[in-house]
Amino acid sequence: MKKKANPTPKKSSPAKPSVREKPVILITNDDGITAPGIRNLVESVKDIGKIVVVAPDKPQSGMGHAITIGQPLRLHKVHVFEGIESYACTGTPVDCVKLAVDKVLHRKPDLCLSGINHGANHSINVIYSGTMSAAVEAAIESIPSAGFSLLDYSIEADFTGARKYARLVVEKMLTTKLDKHTVLNVNVPSKPVDLLRGLKICRQAYAKYEEDFIERNDPHGRHYYWLTGEFVNFDKGKDTDVWALANNYVSVVPVQFDLTNYVLKAKLEKNWQ
Amino acid sequence: MKKKANPTPKKSSPAKPSVREKPVILITNDDGITAPGIRNLVESVKDIGKIVVVAPDKPQSGMGHAITIGQPLRLHKVHVFEGIESYACTGTPVDCVKLAVDKVLHRKPDLCLSGINHGANHSINVIYSGTMSAAVEAAIESIPSAGFSLLDYSIEADFTGARKYARLVVEKMLTTKLDKHTVLNVNVPSKPVDLLRGLKICRQAYAKYEEDFIERNDPHGRHYYWLTGEFVNFDKGKDTDVWALANNYVSVVPVQFDLTNYVLKAKLEKNWQ
Repeated sequence: MKKKANPTPKKSSPAKPSVREKPVILITNDDGITAPGIRNLVESVKDIGKIVVVAPDKPQSGMGHAITIGQPLRLHKVHVFEGIESYACTGTPVDCVKLAVDKVLHRKPDLCLSGINHGANHSINVIYSGTMSAAVEAAIESIPSAGFSLLDYSIEADFTGARKYARLVVEKMLTTKLDKHTVLNVNVPSKPVDLLRGLKICRQAYAKYEEDFIERNDPHGRHYYWLTGEFVNFDKGKDTDVWALANNYVSVVPVQFDLTNYVLKAKLEKNWQ
Repeated sequence: MKKKANPTPKKSSPAKPSVREKPVILITNDDGITAPGIRNLVESVKDIGKIVVVAPDKPQSGMGHAITIGQPLRLHKVHVFEGIESYACTGTPVDCVKLAVDKVLHRKPDLCLSGINHGANHSINVIYSGTMSAAVEAAIESIPSAGFSLLDYSIEADFTGARKYARLVVEKMLTTKLDKHTVLNVNVPSKPVDLLRGLKICRQAYAKYEEDFIERNDPHGRHYYWLTGEFVNFDKGKDTDVWALANNYVSVVPVQFDLTNYVLKAKLEKNWQ
């Protein structure tokens, strides 16, 4: 009975399809691997694919597209999600994607999902968001990706609607022929699921936080500033993510990483060279 | 002689125009306020405007559009550049721009310049670059801006060409009617100035670093990874920044912060909603 004595996995038999035939889905976030948001994302799609989680070991909100150049990175295998291969990474969300592809998966996953973020990533927030930067990094590496955010910062947030629509978007991504550089920025209103009116494909609103640093003195009498701000929408369009969210739609903004301003390029080509 | 006894500055007389009539130019970078690159940028334009420097107190390369949310920020007035009001900031390049506008200048400067970066920020590097993210942040805040990078990482780099073209770009920006959200990504070949063939308006190349993390053990026997990579150009276009730089042009890529992928938006509008 030599075969039984050898536990090395063989190629899957046609009768019992290997789990490897499912799409490989990399999941990360910026709130850290223990955040409720990533747990909800894993739960919402875990039967759809082979899930591997590589996520920051601590909160990394606002890290944008930062990468770690001047320090080493570490990966620790963790048991956070039942039956899911998971790693906590000491780096940024973008580092997580790079390390996952190069050192954990040793291949490009079929899909990369990021989130579910605790808090909005609509409008200009796409540019500051570690959640979205991880998704953009995946797309740069030719992995279609989506970032998900719920408009509720609370640790106690109700993810029911976000879970439903994250799953819907993932199902659509897997059944639609999409370019390998696809990135979707999905935001979900913090509303009961039966009030949500479905997906709305949008453009990024010109809306931003107007900074107002709070000034204080520390216990040693030294001055410091703390970033705060008020959200202001400068964009009256009804085709924006901010409009969609205010009207109880789940906003989906397709994102690109070619930052060239082609209109200005054409103007400067005439006058500057 | 009451007037002489009072040193408080009065409104400038027509005979001697006030320095305030010059454009206010905010200068920052990501290599830190003591880097030779920022000194060269200050030197190259200091007679053109009223210069104020707010730059990181330490290297912040690869910080992308990171902002500091979970910690306080500090600003320290420093005397680094002869006759130039300067502040070292504990935050990221983007933090520097936000703090400069809100707490140092108490107004929007007429122009924001970032750099001169030690090393290339062409192609996809625009997205990882603290230098460029500071410039983009300024443009989000309705301040026309430009980031400058020299294709030489060395602390001993020769900035002669970069200085000449930084000044030329600033002069053009001040004499061209530009949108308040203008951002230019300017890269300069590391070549003798007489070999440089002038400005070339370009698009961002699809070229990136292919990651290859180096794996080592630390002195305590624990595993770590260090990000490295090889630059690969996937883009054959002759209208790209990578092409221009390889052909001894100074590349100028107009950059935008609306990341909406309008082509994919149109496609998904038909099929997903």
